[in-house]
Amino acid sequence: MFEQLGLIGCGLMGGSFALAMKRAGLVKRVVGYSKSPSTTERARQMGVIDVEAPSALLAVSGADIVLLAVPVAASEATFKAIRHLVTNEMLVMDVGSTKRDVVDSARRVLRDQLGCFVPCHPIAGKEVSGVEHADPDLYAGRQVILTPIERTLVAQLGRATQLWDALGAKVKQMSPEAHDAAFAAVSHLPHLVAFALMNGIAGQAQGREFLSLAGPGFRDFSRIAASDPKMWRDILLANRQELLAQLEIFEHGVADIRRAMIDGDADTLETLIDRASAARAHWRMTQARK
Amino acid sequence: MFEQLGLIGCGLMGGSFALAMKRAGLVKRVVGYSKSPSTTERARQMGVIDVEAPSALLAVSGADIVLLAVPVAASEATFKAIRHLVTNEMLVMDVGSTKRDVVDSARRVLRDQLGCFVPCHPIAGKEVSGVEHADPDLYAGRQVILTPIERTLVAQLGRATQLWDALGAKVKQMSPEAHDAAFAAVSHLPHLVAFALMNGIAGQAQGREFLSLAGPGFRDFSRIAASDPKMWRDILLANRQELLAQLEIFEHGVADIRRAMIDGDADTLETLIDRASAARAHWRMTQARK
Repeated sequence: MFEQLGLIGCGLMGGSFALAMKRAGLVKRVVGYSKSPSTTERARQMGVIDVEAPSALLAVSGADIVLLAVPVAASEATFKAIRHLVTNEMLVMDVGSTKRDVVDSARRVLRDQLGCFVPCHPIAGKEVSGVEHADPDLYAGRQVILTPIERTLVAQLGRATQLWDALGAKVKQMSPEAHDAAFAAVSHLPHLVAFALMNGIAGQAQGREFLSLAGPGFRDFSRIAASDPKMWRDILLANRQELLAQLEIFEHGVADIRRAMIDGDADTLETLIDRASAARAHWRMTQARK
Repeated sequence: MFEQLGLIGCGLMGGSFALAMKRAGLVKRVVGYSKSPSTTERARQMGVIDVEAPSALLAVSGADIVLLAVPVAASEATFKAIRHLVTNEMLVMDVGSTKRDVVDSARRVLRDQLGCFVPCHPIAGKEVSGVEHADPDLYAGRQVILTPIERTLVAQLGRATQLWDALGAKVKQMSPEAHDAAFAAVSHLPHLVAFALMNGIAGQAQGREFLSLAGPGFRDFSRIAASDPKMWRDILLANRQELLAQLEIFEHGVADIRRAMIDGDADTLETLIDRASAARAHWRMTQARK
């Protein structure tokens, strides 16, 4: 049980966390700050936060738990803004989709207080953003990846684990590097591909006509293309090294299929599709609860 | 109202059509044939068809409506098998995902009876195949594209239109060429990309670990990768010309994003993602009924 949550970033992710914490009875008071005052005000009006803070630093003042729910590119500036009030007794977490860059900025800025920071990535989200879509169930049943480093305090890691567990999430630990490699493959690359495919179609003279014919397969495949541009700009840049490596692997996969098509090699083509189809058919999303 | 449906191919698409026709009271009797006798038998046991025919030709005997629901690559052989009993008074349709190749084989085989053939592509399906998944609601609310040619009989085109309309589908007409270009972009390319991405991940040493971390975005994006290998092998080959052209356009889209990532050009990257995101956010699937 926490006394006061300092929430920095009152958008979809941060707002959902505050609502989930309140509903679970895990926190008494939420003090929130957003870059845009109108967002902070709306969060208070909606009951997502109890008190509006005029700065990130003042959101941390008096908190025993702090959540950074800002775009990953804003992590370093946020750590700088709050470091004078961060102590090792506080649990500080983030929700960023990349971990190496966030951990690096925490190392640079937090120094002796680095131990209180537990880097987190909840595998949850929506295509819509903003506090008006905040949802106390956003994290229930989802995986949350914790990527502690050698200087993370065991006590804080334990509290973070218990907290996410209490919110109904399934907690998993790995290194920041392993995290970024995995998510380059299963999240960042699919987004990149969906963006490129959407632009390719929409940029054609007949794009509108083509799109009017698209069906449920296209709907599901392209859903992630509607994601938030600023957030994904930051993710693609922050994890570009791993992502470019995964893109190259993907392009070999495309080249294999293209070659079989050009050669009219039905057997190879069937083998390639069969492999993909079997892999996808056997895949099941890991969930905490059915 | 039809007296007898000759159903060639009692799988998901054909079986669903028979069930929908029966439920709507549009046909009195369904005579079915499948390449595999056990499929035909199962279709009869399930009440999808009323009578098992021992050959495609005998399924057509006595029918006033015929549906070819076979893989597109089997179209020509099927037309050859039935042509001796096809008359211009019969409505003959197919449900293939490509149209130029099917129309070409109809031209080659049906000759003086070409006018009775109305090429159809219902934009409906499931990842699962087989008669056990047949569903009378499969076509309700979906688009069905008719691609008549200059020799198609107006009377048969009218009957086909009325029939799909009565099944709750939204009928649209275009040329086989325009159809194949559009579906290369919004269906065949997404499938190709999903197959390649799935193979790229699954082929890595850490593929299993990566996949265990994938979330709802990956689930929806990759759903179409689980499609039927033989069916998609045929589609990718039948429409390879248009598909290779669309693949090239897609690769330009990937190259734009890659360049912005390598250059660390955040503005361009945001513009590219914003364009994709806006295009996807504004897209709505065309549906016959809400």
